[in-house]
Amino acid sequence: MANSKMPANPFEAEFLDKREANCVPMTPSSFLARTAAVYPERLAVVHGGLRRNYGTLYRRARQLASALKRRGIGAGDTVAIMAPNIPEMLEAHYGVPMAGAVLNPLNVRLDPDTIAFILDHGAAKVLITDREFSPTIAAALEKATGQPAIIDIDDPLGQTGELLGEKTYEALLKEGDPGYAWLPPDDEWRALVLSYTSGTTGDPKGVVYHHRGAYINTLANIAVWAMPHHPVYLWTLPIFHSLGWCYPWTVTVLAGTHVCLRRVEPAAIFSALAEHGVTHMCGAPIVLGMIINSSAADRQPFDQTVEVMTAASPPPPTVLEKIEAMGFSITHVYGLTEVFGPATVCAWQEEWGSLSKPDQAIRKARQGVPYPTLEAMTVVEPETLKPVPADGKAVGEILLRGNTIMKGYLKNPEATNKAFDDGWFHTGDLAVQYPDGYVEIKDRSKDIIISGGENISSIEVEGVLYRHPDIVEAAVVAHPDEKWGETPCAFVTLREGARASADEIIEFCRDNLAHYKCPQSVVFGSLPKTSTGKVQKFLLRDEAQKLE
Amino acid sequence: MANSKMPANPFEAEFLDKREANCVPMTPSSFLARTAAVYPERLAVVHGGLRRNYGTLYRRARQLASALKRRGIGAGDTVAIMAPNIPEMLEAHYGVPMAGAVLNPLNVRLDPDTIAFILDHGAAKVLITDREFSPTIAAALEKATGQPAIIDIDDPLGQTGELLGEKTYEALLKEGDPGYAWLPPDDEWRALVLSYTSGTTGDPKGVVYHHRGAYINTLANIAVWAMPHHPVYLWTLPIFHSLGWCYPWTVTVLAGTHVCLRRVEPAAIFSALAEHGVTHMCGAPIVLGMIINSSAADRQPFDQTVEVMTAASPPPPTVLEKIEAMGFSITHVYGLTEVFGPATVCAWQEEWGSLSKPDQAIRKARQGVPYPTLEAMTVVEPETLKPVPADGKAVGEILLRGNTIMKGYLKNPEATNKAFDDGWFHTGDLAVQYPDGYVEIKDRSKDIIISGGENISSIEVEGVLYRHPDIVEAAVVAHPDEKWGETPCAFVTLREGARASADEIIEFCRDNLAHYKCPQSVVFGSLPKTSTGKVQKFLLRDEAQKLE
Repeated sequence: MANSKMPANPFEAEFLDKREANCVPMTPSSFLARTAAVYPERLAVVHGGLRRNYGTLYRRARQLASALKRRGIGAGDTVAIMAPNIPEMLEAHYGVPMAGAVLNPLNVRLDPDTIAFILDHGAAKVLITDREFSPTIAAALEKATGQPAIIDIDDPLGQTGELLGEKTYEALLKEGDPGYAWLPPDDEWRALVLSYTSGTTGDPKGVVYHHRGAYINTLANIAVWAMPHHPVYLWTLPIFHSLGWCYPWTVTVLAGTHVCLRRVEPAAIFSALAEHGVTHMCGAPIVLGMIINSSAADRQPFDQTVEVMTAASPPPPTVLEKIEAMGFSITHVYGLTEVFGPATVCAWQEEWGSLSKPDQAIRKARQGVPYPTLEAMTVVEPETLKPVPADGKAVGEILLRGNTIMKGYLKNPEATNKAFDDGWFHTGDLAVQYPDGYVEIKDRSKDIIISGGENISSIEVEGVLYRHPDIVEAAVVAHPDEKWGETPCAFVTLREGARASADEIIEFCRDNLAHYKCPQSVVFGSLPKTSTGKVQKFLLRDEAQKLE
Repeated sequence: MANSKMPANPFEAEFLDKREANCVPMTPSSFLARTAAVYPERLAVVHGGLRRNYGTLYRRARQLASALKRRGIGAGDTVAIMAPNIPEMLEAHYGVPMAGAVLNPLNVRLDPDTIAFILDHGAAKVLITDREFSPTIAAALEKATGQPAIIDIDDPLGQTGELLGEKTYEALLKEGDPGYAWLPPDDEWRALVLSYTSGTTGDPKGVVYHHRGAYINTLANIAVWAMPHHPVYLWTLPIFHSLGWCYPWTVTVLAGTHVCLRRVEPAAIFSALAEHGVTHMCGAPIVLGMIINSSAADRQPFDQTVEVMTAASPPPPTVLEKIEAMGFSITHVYGLTEVFGPATVCAWQEEWGSLSKPDQAIRKARQGVPYPTLEAMTVVEPETLKPVPADGKAVGEILLRGNTIMKGYLKNPEATNKAFDDGWFHTGDLAVQYPDGYVEIKDRSKDIIISGGENISSIEVEGVLYRHPDIVEAAVVAHPDEKWGETPCAFVTLREGARASADEIIEFCRDNLAHYKCPQSVVFGSLPKTSTGKVQKFLLRDEAQKLE
């Protein structure tokens, strides 16, 4: 007779395994279902004169899911969307995953060739496109080999351009069931969204996000920003950029209001702050600059303090100082497309309160410490992968590890394996780490300037240029030099009516920087930018090559 | 030559699988590591005159983990702890799981027989025990067959009782390495904590919690309560009860302060509110009652509004009204040991603001809607499992589904399978659901009174009794009746000096209730309670049996 034995570890007995009742694949879509059930009447979406509550938003998302499903769109299928921050863009972030498909938001500022590449590479079966972008899309479709079904967004607030497709978005919704019983993915590791990096060189890479990571970062945002119930969130950050930093879901789980913004302009921003009582917004420093440099005619008074989360490139201390004086409170985060938006935060330390405002701004310009849900961050020698000393001086590459990092790059095992070498995600960003653990980015690997064997951080030089009273924007790149190898070359935009000369600016730098770090040449004009507000340094580098 | 083919679903290609860099088992222990790194100097723990910062708390947790590890304690091993809400109790919630072992917090009010049963059933290898409870523990160890290593907590604030074991907790810590490199579990489904239900009948059941659920509910608490950075949290809720509703981790991830409380008494509570600026606390309605009925001598003024999360049994509207007038703001949640503490919340609706205070209190006494991280809740006919109409009248059993539900009951496949029948967790709680989706518990299945074929909710009758000015506490159970089958029997505690008679109280009920619901008999005296503040209705039922 066999002995009936307890298993070696009774906590791992088979009947204690995961079951349908106690283990459900996480998906951020569930947050909309819950908020729509609890607060069906609360205001979910504002767009011009349009108002939709959560009951309606959820019904429309399910209609979209159901309509796609009826067209045979499901697991493994890609639905692309070309749209600014309008209600349809939000709905697609819910409706497409609810159909089991993968949403591919396109960067609206891309050229037709790149769009054609992305549509083919992502194998889009459906393309939802706003008529404003019909010239680009029409040209892209001529170049693309794939033949996605085209659905037009015919937004009353965006009536330029043509209708290109078989029907409008509203007509597509009519095909769907507003009560559609969507299912969570069968595995939380399934693809949720496909988002192409803006790729300054070579073909764009398709970052594949999973449901698990979006769910976790959605909740982490709340903890990091200490968000209240029912925030009023202004969509100044492009939703197509890094999942909108997961705010399509964070705002929804808190039953807040999404204030849409077709075009990010100073007058529209101030109008939203005054009219809708906006409490939270995100954006690259370009948005901060837009606010600071807005004209009196564009400004409107508002009563609340507006919480602003910013990232992309480190905001110069002077920018931080100026915008806080205007009624905004800045939280500085850092992330990349590959990590679901923000992955670190410059967490405020109480003792900073006793520092001078400029010193506070210097602290706030650091990229900071891991999000509470990021498992690990380290700064290493790129070759040896050994951590550099946390002394605020030694520069190394930032590596990250955690549950809020992409699955990898679509159809690109080489780039994926390279990015995930040695059990870490390699950011390509170069930083120092201070004794308190805070990191500060010194440059992208490719942006560092090597002059006479010394590393010069272009960001440090830019920080000084931003402090010059006549300068609105600045970017520094390497200029080839026979003697030194490279020297810094500054591209600057002056304030209207200002007349600082190149010599004056170089002199200003010499007063504030080690001399070897100072620009040898200064070029005046506006700076070329990517669609996400990052200066396109590769273009400036090309230009610097041609100088002299 | 074989064709190299893309996989059918390119998003599921093998190189996009989970890796070390992008998928790390979730454990709430990681929140302490992160907070200790970011805020090493912030005040983590207050206990009498003792102050410890997060750096110290993390070092001590690692010392505990390391000391246990060196003694061979690891995966599948149980470490029991018998302690009130003191620093050692918090540390154990970090240190024991960091060793890979399972923590088993014991209910300090249990009798030696039950403790002996639990120690043997959970197979505790180590028992950490506070000297105050040495009489119970000494008696339990005589009865237990297992021989756990005994470690004594010798708290300067609790010097009654004896030291029973081989060494003190502080001496154990000295065996450990404060820099111990703990590892997350190899699977987030691993057991984290073992917690026995207070079990009003039969042997207690050992609820096994997983790391995944604790991680998720920790974050959900922040969203539900809109918690700020650095809350000051008073430990009025027993930590041994349902993981302390996950607040050992929620307070830590927000870098807040844990204010310990050896004994939950009115003077100590008010003193903490005044001295430490407590912002948040949790507790059963018994804690609310303790505050409301506190004497003038015990009270101290405080400036802040104190957020109180309450559950366990529905707070009567009058209790809610009274305590809010005293400077507390109540959030009503509902949960069970099996679901990591709170699983639903009575989410506030703006339009309730226009209701009268008593009407607001009636809304707030409902158990509400699912936590944002609970995947599903339904109220069903217990036999057919068909949802009852959401009409505020039809009574059914609450079923739950989601990631914050236990693995099951240790060594009890029968009870586990029964609890998880048909893909849901069966709460055993009977409720109605209103048209707005909010649930209101009418009774535990076994607490319903059936009189003349009509179901009478003991909670409804108790709600009326609580409105009587002379009554401090009330509980209603079934009394056997030849004619009606059962009739309600009320047990009440009168305010000091009050003299209401049984007839007056019955008359008061008849003014406020359908007559068939009114108690036929009233018994005066204090009410027997479980260690978690729940009235022990099974004792009252026994007493009611013997009446007349």
